[in-house]
Amino acid sequence: MKLATFRTAEGTRIGLADGEELRDVSAILVDVLGGLPDMERLIRHADTLLPVLRQESGETVDASKVEWLPPVPRPGKICGIAMNNSASNERKISAPDHPAFFLKPASCMVGHGQAIRVRPYYGSVHPEPELAVVIGTAMRDVDAVSALEHVFGYTIFNDVTGNGMRAEDLFRYRAVYRGSDGELEYREQHLSYAGRYKGSDTFGALGPWLVTRDEVPDPDNLAVECTVAGEVIARDSTRYYNYKVCELLSFISQFHTLEPGDIVSCGTAFKPDPGRKSIHHANFQEVPGPVSISIEQLGTLSNPVVIEQRQIGNWRLASSA
Amino acid sequence: MKLATFRTAEGTRIGLADGEELRDVSAILVDVLGGLPDMERLIRHADTLLPVLRQESGETVDASKVEWLPPVPRPGKICGIAMNNSASNERKISAPDHPAFFLKPASCMVGHGQAIRVRPYYGSVHPEPELAVVIGTAMRDVDAVSALEHVFGYTIFNDVTGNGMRAEDLFRYRAVYRGSDGELEYREQHLSYAGRYKGSDTFGALGPWLVTRDEVPDPDNLAVECTVAGEVIARDSTRYYNYKVCELLSFISQFHTLEPGDIVSCGTAFKPDPGRKSIHHANFQEVPGPVSISIEQLGTLSNPVVIEQRQIGNWRLASSA
Repeated sequence: MKLATFRTAEGTRIGLADGEELRDVSAILVDVLGGLPDMERLIRHADTLLPVLRQESGETVDASKVEWLPPVPRPGKICGIAMNNSASNERKISAPDHPAFFLKPASCMVGHGQAIRVRPYYGSVHPEPELAVVIGTAMRDVDAVSALEHVFGYTIFNDVTGNGMRAEDLFRYRAVYRGSDGELEYREQHLSYAGRYKGSDTFGALGPWLVTRDEVPDPDNLAVECTVAGEVIARDSTRYYNYKVCELLSFISQFHTLEPGDIVSCGTAFKPDPGRKSIHHANFQEVPGPVSISIEQLGTLSNPVVIEQRQIGNWRLASSA
Repeated sequence: MKLATFRTAEGTRIGLADGEELRDVSAILVDVLGGLPDMERLIRHADTLLPVLRQESGETVDASKVEWLPPVPRPGKICGIAMNNSASNERKISAPDHPAFFLKPASCMVGHGQAIRVRPYYGSVHPEPELAVVIGTAMRDVDAVSALEHVFGYTIFNDVTGNGMRAEDLFRYRAVYRGSDGELEYREQHLSYAGRYKGSDTFGALGPWLVTRDEVPDPDNLAVECTVAGEVIARDSTRYYNYKVCELLSFISQFHTLEPGDIVSCGTAFKPDPGRKSIHHANFQEVPGPVSISIEQLGTLSNPVVIEQRQIGNWRLASSA
C-alpha cells in the first residue's frame, strides 16, 4: 500500500497511490479516527485502519493538481545516518566502528514537487539520495533480529546537505573531561555542528509516498538512482550500505526511543556511474534542478531547485566553499 | 505568568504556577480551544487565551503530587547553541565567528523531577545549565532588533551531554567538494555527529514551567547556578554568553523557520565558582544527583539521576571516556 499526504483546496488529505491513480481516503479515515486524519495518527492506529483501507477505495483525484506534502509531514524526529555508504570508506582516515547519526528538524521538510530553496550565502549545497524508514511502533532496546517488525514503511529521502556551511561550522578546541583521578583533563578535539548544514528550510525532501513494509521484503537490496537536470549523478544500491536497516534501527534504539512516525534515513547511496558525474558535482548554486531520486519498489521523488536571491542579515560568514 | 504542563490521574493538564501554588486551568482552556489543551496550541492561540487566563483562577492542585512534564512536551525542534559561553573562548583553537548549533529531539525530554537515566555504556555524561527560549510566533529572516517580539517565554534547560559518546562519534576523512573549475577537490575534514551524545533519552530536562516574556525584561542578564548533590558546580550569568538571545534567534532564522513552541537553548552557563568544582567534574557515572539549575526570575529545575544497569546489544563501542 502506498500512502500519501497531499493538500487540496479542502485542506490536508491522505491518499492511496496506485499506478497513475491517487485516491483520497480522508473521509474513510475521519469516520474511524473521529477527527481529521494525519499520517502519524494513521500509523498509531494502523492495526485498525489498514484493513479498512484495503477494502475501501476512496475518491479518485487528479494527482497532477494536488500539492504533495511529505507523507509524514511532522515526524517527531528525523535521524540521518552519517557516512553509511561503503563507497565512502576509503576516504575515512579514522571513524567509529558503529553507526553515527545527526538530527534534522521537521521544519526542513518538503514533499514531492515542492521546491528546494537555496540562497547564495548558504555556499555549496548538494543532494543526497537515501532510503528512509518510517517507524511504526515505539522501539527501545530492540535487537537487530526483530527491529524490522517495528517498521511501518519505507520512502525516499533527499538529505540535502550544505557542505559550504559544513566547512564553516567546525571547532577545534580543548575539551574538558573528568579524569580517572577526579581531576580535569584537557583533550584537543575537533567538533562540528549540523544545525545549519543539515537542517535549513527545504533541506529534507520526503516522498512521494510511503510504501508499507509488507511490499518491501528486502530493504537491503534496492537499486537507487539520482539525476540532476536529467543527468545521472548516482547509480547505487542499498546493498552497499555498511550497516543494514535492521542494524541501524537496533543501534539507535540503544540510545533513543524511536516513536511512530519517526524517520530514519539510512545514509547516502551516492556511488557515481562509471565515467559520469557524482552528487558532489551537483552544487545547486551552479547546477539547476530538478533533482530526482528513484528507489526500486518505492517510486521517484522529484523536486525543482530555486535560488533565492537574498542576502544574510548582519552576519559575516567565513569562506563559502 | 508561569505556565506548566503536568500529569495527574486525569491526564495531561496545563497549570499556572504562583509562588507555592499550582492551579489547573485546563478546564478553562478546553472551553476556548474546543478540545484538550496542550502548550503548543495555547502558544498558537496566546492572543486569545492569555487574557482569559489572567482573569480566571483555576482549581488549586497539590504541586507535590503531580508529575511535572516539560512545559512544551513535544516541540517541533530544539536548537542547542554550541560553545556560546565566553568562558570557553580561551579553549577554542579555531572556531566560526557566528553561532553554531545542533538539534535535540523531543523524545529526549523530561520534566522537573523526572529522572535523568544514564547507562554504563554511555560513558561520561554531564549536565549543562542553559537559558531556553520558547518561540511564540513563526520567525524567518527576522533581524536581531525585532527578534524578541517572537518570543513566547523563557525556561530552564539541562542540555545533558554525553562527552564519552562525543569522543566516539568523530570522523576524520577526505571530504569532496566541487572546485571552481567544476572538477572535484578533496579536503581533509574532521566531522562529528551529535545524535547520540546530545539526543539520547532523558538528555533534555526542561522546566519546571515557562515564564512569559513580559516577566523577563532582560534575558541577557540572568544569574545561573547549578548544583549536583547539593554542591555548586556553576555560578554564572547569561550576560557572559558570546551572543545575545536576540542575535541567536535572528541568526537561526536566516536558515530555519522557527515555529511556535520551538525551543532554542542558548548555550551552557558553566563558569565554575572560584575554588569549586565545575560541570566537567559532574560525570553522572561517578557523581550522584540530583542536579538542580536555578535561573534568576525562572525558578529551579531539579532532576534525580538514575544509573540503569544495562548492557548494550551487539555493538562494540570504542573507548568510553
